[in-house]
Amino acid sequence: MRTTVGIIGAGPAGLLLARLLHNAGIDSVVLESRDRAYVERRQRAGILEQGTVDVLRAAGAGERMDREGLPHDGIELRFARRRHRVDFPALTGGRSVMVYAQTEVCKDLVALQLKDGGPLLFEAEALAVEGAETDHPRVRFRRGGAEGGKGAEEVLECDYVVGCDGFWGVARAAVPAGPVRTFERTYPFGWLGILADVAPSHDELVYARHDRGFALLSMRSPSVSRLYLQVPAGTDSESWSDEEIWTELERRFETDDDWVLNRGPITQKSVTPMRSYVHEPMRHGRLFLAGDAAHIVPPTGAKGLNLAVGDVVTFARALAHRSETGSDDLLDAYSETCLRRVWQAERFSYDMTTLLHRAPDAGPFEERLQLARLDRIVSSRAAETDIAEAYTGFPIG
Amino acid sequence: MRTTVGIIGAGPAGLLLARLLHNAGIDSVVLESRDRAYVERRQRAGILEQGTVDVLRAAGAGERMDREGLPHDGIELRFARRRHRVDFPALTGGRSVMVYAQTEVCKDLVALQLKDGGPLLFEAEALAVEGAETDHPRVRFRRGGAEGGKGAEEVLECDYVVGCDGFWGVARAAVPAGPVRTFERTYPFGWLGILADVAPSHDELVYARHDRGFALLSMRSPSVSRLYLQVPAGTDSESWSDEEIWTELERRFETDDDWVLNRGPITQKSVTPMRSYVHEPMRHGRLFLAGDAAHIVPPTGAKGLNLAVGDVVTFARALAHRSETGSDDLLDAYSETCLRRVWQAERFSYDMTTLLHRAPDAGPFEERLQLARLDRIVSSRAAETDIAEAYTGFPIG
Repeated sequence: MRTTVGIIGAGPAGLLLARLLHNAGIDSVVLESRDRAYVERRQRAGILEQGTVDVLRAAGAGERMDREGLPHDGIELRFARRRHRVDFPALTGGRSVMVYAQTEVCKDLVALQLKDGGPLLFEAEALAVEGAETDHPRVRFRRGGAEGGKGAEEVLECDYVVGCDGFWGVARAAVPAGPVRTFERTYPFGWLGILADVAPSHDELVYARHDRGFALLSMRSPSVSRLYLQVPAGTDSESWSDEEIWTELERRFETDDDWVLNRGPITQKSVTPMRSYVHEPMRHGRLFLAGDAAHIVPPTGAKGLNLAVGDVVTFARALAHRSETGSDDLLDAYSETCLRRVWQAERFSYDMTTLLHRAPDAGPFEERLQLARLDRIVSSRAAETDIAEAYTGFPIG
Repeated sequence: MRTTVGIIGAGPAGLLLARLLHNAGIDSVVLESRDRAYVERRQRAGILEQGTVDVLRAAGAGERMDREGLPHDGIELRFARRRHRVDFPALTGGRSVMVYAQTEVCKDLVALQLKDGGPLLFEAEALAVEGAETDHPRVRFRRGGAEGGKGAEEVLECDYVVGCDGFWGVARAAVPAGPVRTFERTYPFGWLGILADVAPSHDELVYARHDRGFALLSMRSPSVSRLYLQVPAGTDSESWSDEEIWTELERRFETDDDWVLNRGPITQKSVTPMRSYVHEPMRHGRLFLAGDAAHIVPPTGAKGLNLAVGDVVTFARALAHRSETGSDDLLDAYSETCLRRVWQAERFSYDMTTLLHRAPDAGPFEERLQLARLDRIVSSRAAETDIAEAYTGFPIG
């Protein structure tokens, strides 16, 4: 099997890349180890930056998003029983975000690709990337056989390979250790996240800093709430009863006014670990890493999906530039171009995390620093604008 | 001996307070344990915020400052061999700072007070504050006797006592432990500071972040440079030769252009420890704490002197308000009013310190975060404005 661009992974990065390449007249094959139902079901991010929205629309994948997504013009910061709205368009000259779940983005892109695009192979597990330093890198893979058995090994011959296979994928392993630097930070807490069949208690996201820990109110639709509680790293989600979760959410979202948290049936419950990670460079020869395969952010800044989008847009532009001009300039600059944006997102995600979470080793001085930072954000237009610009998204490329 | 306001300490806070009260027709006595020469000689801060400049002018203490001080409209950030100027007036609607040494401020205020003000007693050591909960607090003190001996104990009877006697003074000790909370952070590094008889190598302050550690270029006059190097906490200044200091400064200020560091005779050399500290509340009964007696900041944000000025302005306004209206409202609000500004300065000083210093336990991720923060400041007007606003000063009161 042979193609121009071999794409490992049918998450939002891989699927969007396939679409962007298709639109540019460049053929690709996507290899995805899981089945279609799994890809369309896995719960992940839900906040699309202005730039991501623009990219999806321009790629022809924005129709359902524009119909069913929830445009959000701000977030609420809640601390010391106070409520403060950050007004994105007013602070950024009109930029905002869209609440539209990653699962929905994936469904839309899968449908487009199957209808009108290059091969998208589910249950096709990439085993290794070979020959990244040559002009003809290859991906060894194996399809699922009958009744869940394994098929024979196959080879996908490519001009380029893009690893969109996440933090645990095989693509990154193909980069030799020599020039690589990795940067990592783990956090002593995670998020206990729930989906609940109840109307969201607020029409925008609420980020709450509380002495008991962070909480986040988000939503998937007008009738489905998504809520998170900071919990110690390694917490088992089953150790929290539904009643305990609602009671703790109520405490952390407390206000001085008559705001009420709506309760409803919890349909899903899981714990997300928190990690910052960057792998440099993001390219080795003709192998390019994109999204979680190259970098992880803690979810507080809602940047993970949006970073992946920036990476694949940068790659697609660079390859189109080569097709048009014959120049490798943009491909050669891929890693540096992406990393500048990646590090801004890493910084913002780290800052939002430390601003709002209770660190187990934080003393009274650090607690007051958090409150002074929040006080600064709500009283300085410059500080508030800095947050609004970052939240609505850093420029791509 | 009796007065309306007993002021402990003839640093800039105590001296300015005496002047503000004098101008408001309220009498005071200043007790200072050291002699006049010492007070006029001790090297401390040198950056006056816009608000401090305004206060000194309004108090009639700005004449020599306006003649000899150096108005500065910006600072330079230097990192990764790059140079970036932060333009204060352009970012803040016209605000800037003045380079005028604390020793000069003190000389001006001492001269004014001796010429035309209440008693300013040098070599008068405060021993204790008593009766802070009563309407008539007292300061026990002792004057220096003949040939450096000690005189008999005396008592200064007051309506109010203001402790401007610094971190090691006696005033804070008179606050009972019950309602007090203290907030503290020490840093594993300090500043090796030098004075050198050489023209400053740049016409504005240069804050340098370097892999080898922080460095700061400042000045006392057109012919005297003030320079600092980050060193490990507890460093003996004599363990650095002059040659080693200049060589290390050159390394940390390195640029890609032809900028040159001027060398000259080093006339003074000392190490400053770094500490963040806040004492809450800043008032107990009729005893009020101001300046370093209540809070310490690391010097990176140039906030120490300016915070002290804010405290005594707040106190003088509150007492004048009481004289005019009979209302204790502003005196009762003193601690809360000051602390909001104090915490903003603590936050900014901490952020500037962590932005620019190399922490011994920082890993590669933290180093990249520093560079990403600096990259953000130089590429976002909002982030840059946030810094410029904080550097030129938070509003008083």
